[in-house]
Amino acid sequence: MSHNELDALRKQVEELNLQLLEVINKRGELVQEIGKLKEAQGVNRYDPVRERKMLDLITEHNDGPFETSTLQHLFKEIFKAGLELQKDDHRKALLV
Amino acid sequence: MSHNELDALRKQVEELNLQLLEVINKRGELVQEIGKLKEAQGVNRYDPVRERKMLDLITEHNDGPFETSTLQHLFKEIFKAGLELQKDDHRKALLV
Repeated sequence: MSHNELDALRKQVEELNLQLLEVINKRGELVQEIGKLKEAQGVNRYDPVRERKMLDLITEHNDGPFETSTLQHLFKEIFKAGLELQKDDHRKALLV
Repeated sequence: MSHNELDALRKQVEELNLQLLEVINKRGELVQEIGKLKEAQGVNRYDPVRERKMLDLITEHNDGPFETSTLQHLFKEIFKAGLELQKDDHRKALLV
C-alpha cells in the first residue's frame, strides 16, 4: 500500500516536472522576444539591476520549503540559460 | 511605444518567475513526503534510475526554444535541491 503511495507521489512530481518544462520554455520565448527588442534598440542584453529585482521578487514571495538561497541559485541558472538563448539568436542573426 | 512593449514582456516574465517559484516549492513539498516514505521503508533516497527516467520524460516533451541539454542541466539542479531538502529533513529527524 505504501508502495502505491510512493507511486502516486512520483506521478505528481512528474506532472510538476512537465509544468516546469512548459513554463521554462515559455519564459525562454519571452526572453527571446525581449532580446530582439533590445537588439533593435541597441541596448545591452545583460542587465544586473533587472536581475536583482527579479531575485528580490522571488525572495519576497518564497513560502518554502526551499531556502531563499537555494531558489536564488536555481533562478540564476534559469536566467543564465535565457541569456545564452539571446546570445545564440544574436549569433544566428549575424550569420544570416 | 516599444518601451511599453519591453515593460509588458518583462511583466509576463515576472509572472512566469512566480509560477516557477510556486511549482518548484510544490515539488519540494512532494519530494519531502517521498523522502519520509522512503525513510520509513529504509530505502535509499538517491535513485539514479528514477532520475534518468525523469530526464528522459523532459527530453520527450521538449518543444524548445531551450536545447534539451540546457533543460537537463536545469532539472539536475532542481533534483539536487530536492535531495538536499530530504537530507536536511533527515538530519533534523536525527536531532529530535
